[in-house]
Amino acid sequence: MKIARFTAGGSDPQYGIVDDEDLVVLAGDPMFQGFETTGERVPLAEARLLAPVIPRSKVVCIGMNYAEHKDELAPGTGDRPVIFLKPNTSVVGPGDTIQIPPVEGRIVHEGELAIVIGAVAKRVRAEDADQVIFGYTIANDVSARDEMFKDGQWARAKGYDTFCPVGPVIETEIDPRGVEIQTYVDGEPRRHGNTRDMIHGIPEIIEYVSDVWTLLPGDLILTGTPAGLGGFVDGQTVDIDIAGIGRLSNPARNRM
Amino acid sequence: MKIARFTAGGSDPQYGIVDDEDLVVLAGDPMFQGFETTGERVPLAEARLLAPVIPRSKVVCIGMNYAEHKDELAPGTGDRPVIFLKPNTSVVGPGDTIQIPPVEGRIVHEGELAIVIGAVAKRVRAEDADQVIFGYTIANDVSARDEMFKDGQWARAKGYDTFCPVGPVIETEIDPRGVEIQTYVDGEPRRHGNTRDMIHGIPEIIEYVSDVWTLLPGDLILTGTPAGLGGFVDGQTVDIDIAGIGRLSNPARNRM
Repeated sequence: MKIARFTAGGSDPQYGIVDDEDLVVLAGDPMFQGFETTGERVPLAEARLLAPVIPRSKVVCIGMNYAEHKDELAPGTGDRPVIFLKPNTSVVGPGDTIQIPPVEGRIVHEGELAIVIGAVAKRVRAEDADQVIFGYTIANDVSARDEMFKDGQWARAKGYDTFCPVGPVIETEIDPRGVEIQTYVDGEPRRHGNTRDMIHGIPEIIEYVSDVWTLLPGDLILTGTPAGLGGFVDGQTVDIDIAGIGRLSNPARNRM
Repeated sequence: MKIARFTAGGSDPQYGIVDDEDLVVLAGDPMFQGFETTGERVPLAEARLLAPVIPRSKVVCIGMNYAEHKDELAPGTGDRPVIFLKPNTSVVGPGDTIQIPPVEGRIVHEGELAIVIGAVAKRVRAEDADQVIFGYTIANDVSARDEMFKDGQWARAKGYDTFCPVGPVIETEIDPRGVEIQTYVDGEPRRHGNTRDMIHGIPEIIEYVSDVWTLLPGDLILTGTPAGLGGFVDGQTVDIDIAGIGRLSNPARNRM
């Protein structure tokens, strides 16, 4: 089931289930209020999709979770995942503009499968991970790559406003093992990967992260980016395609 | 004016103004609803103080903002502040227990003056910083020091649940320049500093941070810790005293 958050004709944000060319409108946020529908249908073509979730607390990122990308960044680092945070203020939705701040060096895309947490999750064992997962979406872990290394800490260079496009929908039923992730810049294929090449699988990620931090409903975990660094500049558009979820497309502009 | 968030006799959290031995109860969260009082008074002795604010978005930390502490950590790093994030799930209140997770190495206290943001703040100039500051409180930037360096990224080692005690109150009128910060472990003086020794002053911090991230009402900025690293262990109590605000006291226990 694909869940979208949207506005139509200037409405307040609503939730809906994607059904062919329509959205079946939901009575409330399905994460908290279930899947009761209002009976209304809105044509997808008339809806503006929004970030399907705004985390109340955390956007957790798993660094270096694909072997080849890890070797690019920090060969030889330890066996545990490196985890870091993007603030919820960095989240934008499908079609929203990535605003490039006036910083030095390259701005890079990192297309990733994102876990949407659906329950308060604290010290969850790997075998129980499914119980706290609401679904999956696509995220772009946009990074000011040269600035990351200036600070040492990545929170700034990966946390600027608009540096976390998310969407277009949450898919509640996908099997996240073995899905293809393909990034495009202006329609040209760039990074490509498959979640089967993750170093740390999703159940293990949930166990590790929820041992450190209590996760709240709506929190996101970005599961890491495959190898193949690639930048983009003002005027270009970054698309990330994950089979079974959809395509997240965001234009980029220099911040005014 | 000192603002507390509290429960009394099992009530839902309320807000109050400290008036001698009493709390003058406020009609709502003063950050959003102003300072209208209900007419009620609650004796401080009967109230249990809570974290005076739970950030909706970010706990921003300024790293290495006192020259001596900076030299301990990373001599020779650049002139810009290093900024990083603790998640809002790490926030606890006065008297709450710091839960020490089963990690290697030392757990250290970092007593800091914390700015409480009172308005949506985006690209605020230093000279306008006062317009977005609601007040000041005390925070303990608890850190699993040896783990910080294992990950490289500090989000985990500084972000565990309970690693951000905050309180006891928000002081809305203090002049934050030249205030004394004194940390105690089991009543014995440890770290000591004065905010006059900050490398980056509060207006400059607001300008820098709000250029990177939009700050939301209730967000906290921890302004850095003075020199003098010090640890604590299971069974000890950490107190941080800031003249003009009060004393934040938290016992520590190994996590069960």
